[in-house]
Amino acid sequence: MTVTEPTYKTIAAKKLKERDEKFIKEWLIAEDQLPDQSVKDVTKFIEKNNLLTPSEVEITESDAPTIVGNIKSKKWRAVQVMEAFGKRATIAHQLTNCLSEIFFEEGLQTAKELDEYQDKTGETKGPLHGLPFSVKDNFNVKGHDSTIGMVNLSFKKVDNDAVLVDLLRKLGAVLYVKTNVPVAMMMPETNNHIFGNTTNPMNRALSAGGSSGGECALIRMKGAPIGVGSDIGGSLRIPASFQNLYTLRPSFGRFPTYGCTSGLPGLESVNSVNGPISTSLESMELYCKSIIDSEPWLHDGKVIELPWRDVELPSKLNIAVLVDDGYVRPTPPIRRGMKIAIDKLKEAGHDIIEWDGSDHVEMAKIIGKFFLSDGGHHIKQITEPTGEPFFEYMKGYESAQDLGVPGLWKLHAERTSMMKKFLDKWNNTSSKTANGKPIDAIIMPATPFAGSPNHKFRDYVGYTSPFNLVDYSAGIIPVTRADKDLDPKDPVCTNYSNSDKMIWEDYDPEETHGGAVSIQIVGRRLQEEKVIKMMKVVSSLLDDEI
Amino acid sequence: MTVTEPTYKTIAAKKLKERDEKFIKEWLIAEDQLPDQSVKDVTKFIEKNNLLTPSEVEITESDAPTIVGNIKSKKWRAVQVMEAFGKRATIAHQLTNCLSEIFFEEGLQTAKELDEYQDKTGETKGPLHGLPFSVKDNFNVKGHDSTIGMVNLSFKKVDNDAVLVDLLRKLGAVLYVKTNVPVAMMMPETNNHIFGNTTNPMNRALSAGGSSGGECALIRMKGAPIGVGSDIGGSLRIPASFQNLYTLRPSFGRFPTYGCTSGLPGLESVNSVNGPISTSLESMELYCKSIIDSEPWLHDGKVIELPWRDVELPSKLNIAVLVDDGYVRPTPPIRRGMKIAIDKLKEAGHDIIEWDGSDHVEMAKIIGKFFLSDGGHHIKQITEPTGEPFFEYMKGYESAQDLGVPGLWKLHAERTSMMKKFLDKWNNTSSKTANGKPIDAIIMPATPFAGSPNHKFRDYVGYTSPFNLVDYSAGIIPVTRADKDLDPKDPVCTNYSNSDKMIWEDYDPEETHGGAVSIQIVGRRLQEEKVIKMMKVVSSLLDDEI
Repeated sequence: MTVTEPTYKTIAAKKLKERDEKFIKEWLIAEDQLPDQSVKDVTKFIEKNNLLTPSEVEITESDAPTIVGNIKSKKWRAVQVMEAFGKRATIAHQLTNCLSEIFFEEGLQTAKELDEYQDKTGETKGPLHGLPFSVKDNFNVKGHDSTIGMVNLSFKKVDNDAVLVDLLRKLGAVLYVKTNVPVAMMMPETNNHIFGNTTNPMNRALSAGGSSGGECALIRMKGAPIGVGSDIGGSLRIPASFQNLYTLRPSFGRFPTYGCTSGLPGLESVNSVNGPISTSLESMELYCKSIIDSEPWLHDGKVIELPWRDVELPSKLNIAVLVDDGYVRPTPPIRRGMKIAIDKLKEAGHDIIEWDGSDHVEMAKIIGKFFLSDGGHHIKQITEPTGEPFFEYMKGYESAQDLGVPGLWKLHAERTSMMKKFLDKWNNTSSKTANGKPIDAIIMPATPFAGSPNHKFRDYVGYTSPFNLVDYSAGIIPVTRADKDLDPKDPVCTNYSNSDKMIWEDYDPEETHGGAVSIQIVGRRLQEEKVIKMMKVVSSLLDDEI
Repeated sequence: MTVTEPTYKTIAAKKLKERDEKFIKEWLIAEDQLPDQSVKDVTKFIEKNNLLTPSEVEITESDAPTIVGNIKSKKWRAVQVMEAFGKRATIAHQLTNCLSEIFFEEGLQTAKELDEYQDKTGETKGPLHGLPFSVKDNFNVKGHDSTIGMVNLSFKKVDNDAVLVDLLRKLGAVLYVKTNVPVAMMMPETNNHIFGNTTNPMNRALSAGGSSGGECALIRMKGAPIGVGSDIGGSLRIPASFQNLYTLRPSFGRFPTYGCTSGLPGLESVNSVNGPISTSLESMELYCKSIIDSEPWLHDGKVIELPWRDVELPSKLNIAVLVDDGYVRPTPPIRRGMKIAIDKLKEAGHDIIEWDGSDHVEMAKIIGKFFLSDGGHHIKQITEPTGEPFFEYMKGYESAQDLGVPGLWKLHAERTSMMKKFLDKWNNTSSKTANGKPIDAIIMPATPFAGSPNHKFRDYVGYTSPFNLVDYSAGIIPVTRADKDLDPKDPVCTNYSNSDKMIWEDYDPEETHGGAVSIQIVGRRLQEEKVIKMMKVVSSLLDDEI
């Protein structure tokens, strides 16, 4: 009797091998130079071990406006910048397994052409001229796969750039890598049967989170100054919060999504959105403004013709805070992070009231039903032919039943009424604020924990997904890091729910030590400009160095 | 053996009786004053027979800006204006059967309060202070039914105003009637088992069209200076075009829809939108600006925070025209109307190119599948308990099967790709225009016929529904009237399709004589301001008096 390897394993191994062969050999560091897996925090590893030249460090530590400014003035050239980020991305990958598709040569070629263009015309191509830019695996880039962590999508090069990718190129950005995601991008940790798990560079015992986990690990390692991920239930905010990064989950229709590969294509009950991830708010702002100034509504029929607006914030913000949603009590590091933020906001004179989050759980349940509404049909259709098994977190898609269109319409109608209630609740905060105006934002956790041990993500996205259901704009702001001394385990469990109990039991101050503590800021729908401005205000009150 | 009347007939008769008892007796004209059914055109009947005082005629012939201006200056009082429109609406109804819910006393009470408010404060309540405003039956008005033509929804008074109704009240509008619709608002003629058929005041042998047919008949008769209807496949544009009225089908998210009663609640694959209907573009503009200035996004979470914008049109427009979609050839009056418009536009120096509408039929087919995707479940759930039968046009809902969520997702994905192709096609018109810019608008028919004989609506909405599928903004502009001498029957049929053959066979110049000939103007998504401005330009080229 011969034991045959399942098809999915054969394909996955071949695909993995192909990826690994695409690295530029000289950029890889030797196996023996790599830290042992027991070394958890690798965020300073590159500098400490002098793996880059001082100039390369300077370039890769710069934010996007500085980079494009220095290329414009020819202090730096596009090729030089691309090389620095290419090297750093390579090492970042060796430390965290963050990349899926690799095309450094294309990046170098683009950079070369940009330099030549600049030399010839004396002009830059656009506001992102020469800026290295990484994208999550679901962004179609011509000539490369978009496997989105599904084995059966290997070796299926796409023919066209996604609209966003096309715009980025036109604006002068340099693409060179795509980043790893979980299966179908529907798990909050980045693991799949092709490329495996992406770890968190702040603490490699922790997951990078998901689904934009590869993107966040790369950016945390400064292997790219900025990148884009996507979010349908928390997929930008969870990994960004796990890696102390800034991100913006825009409302649907603000940024183009056409031509991306979806894990649940045709799902419109909740729409996946694309947003930037960076260590710098200025970098994010440059991206947002550049994309929207390029009139993306002329290239994606679902984008709203809404220019990037200058908004003026009131000098004192009205902010509602939610520390605990009553369904899963955040672990001590997150509650400490919230306290730091609230204290600083109060100190600065902002008006802080409480947010009533009692409807969030119901909202999270409805969005979960939308995800499963096709009975897992699409995902099974892709995984079954290769025998690709389901990860534990994805089992719901295996057992789900087609909800039927009447059932779906019923859920839509429920959501519509929830949106109205949510909006009214927001408006009615005016009765609780000092100036009688409604809140400008909610500040709350993005997850109940400061990172999640690899392969152990707890099944609760109720701190992020309600805002996908109502399509509000939201951002992530880094606050501090988990600290085993400052964040001892709660003596007793609140026992709100099974999830609450599990998360309380699982919390281990030692294991989480060094993990990221971030907060979420939620603005009204389509208020991306205001959210970024508020992120600046809040961020300026917090410590610079995390 | 006793023959029992089916439940639906009993309820419908009771509901009809209740409606008829709500008229103010003194406003009704005597049965013997009413014209015989053989009198087709009743648009001038009221003036000709001196059924209103000269002052009442003056008031009801005025547009909305004039009315609110004269109330503001106290030349007219709100009660006086309400009375004039109440009387006229009553007669309009006697001539066309256009009303569903009647609450004149409430209107008079509101008007009285507005007059008192003005006397007391010296101010008006808002930009629509004192303006009589009719709404289609689906707009929930507290204390009244929203039967939307379904017997089982009789005697179910709603508890809350729709968001739009609430805003209208806050802006000072006076509500006094709701208008008749077809069953579930899903037929393009206005007929149902409660109130029966609404006829077209321009030619009562013709249907008012649907689904905003009651609204359009009322407004054509000047029983209201302005009203709102809704459109999910042509429901504003078809009846407005049949009655030579202006209307605007906005893109979804521009005007609030929350709290309206839907025929297909929870259908989000295509969204119903609300838009104004009037004999005056200035009235429509006042409405649009007033509603959007009141920040409806604070009251309906699906409204986009997009202010009413001043747009400047190029002095010469680029316009693509489509006379014939290749699936159903418009009948002679419509083709003549298109020729009039095209000639005038060319004469005025606008750049006219051809529009390729070869994808419209496929678009119309997809939207039809969305309507039926729940297998008619919702409609049957409402009609079955009372035994209400299906009209011929609605039989598709009776026989439909639940498409299943996987099937729905597949259709969504197809539509997404269609939207992109459509947008690219629009952009690519730049290669055909003199100035190298894409078109500003498409001008084309809204239906292939100038009105449709009562109970004989032909099953083709392919001139309107494609723009619901891609959610473009569109308006209707009156051009002329069908004329048996100018519009003889085509000697042979083009035989494009069965529908084409049927419509060719059905066309009878005598029967259609006097029916409305209107054209449709389509702008990009969310370009409502631009569409209205273009409607002004086109309209100014056409004859004043129709």
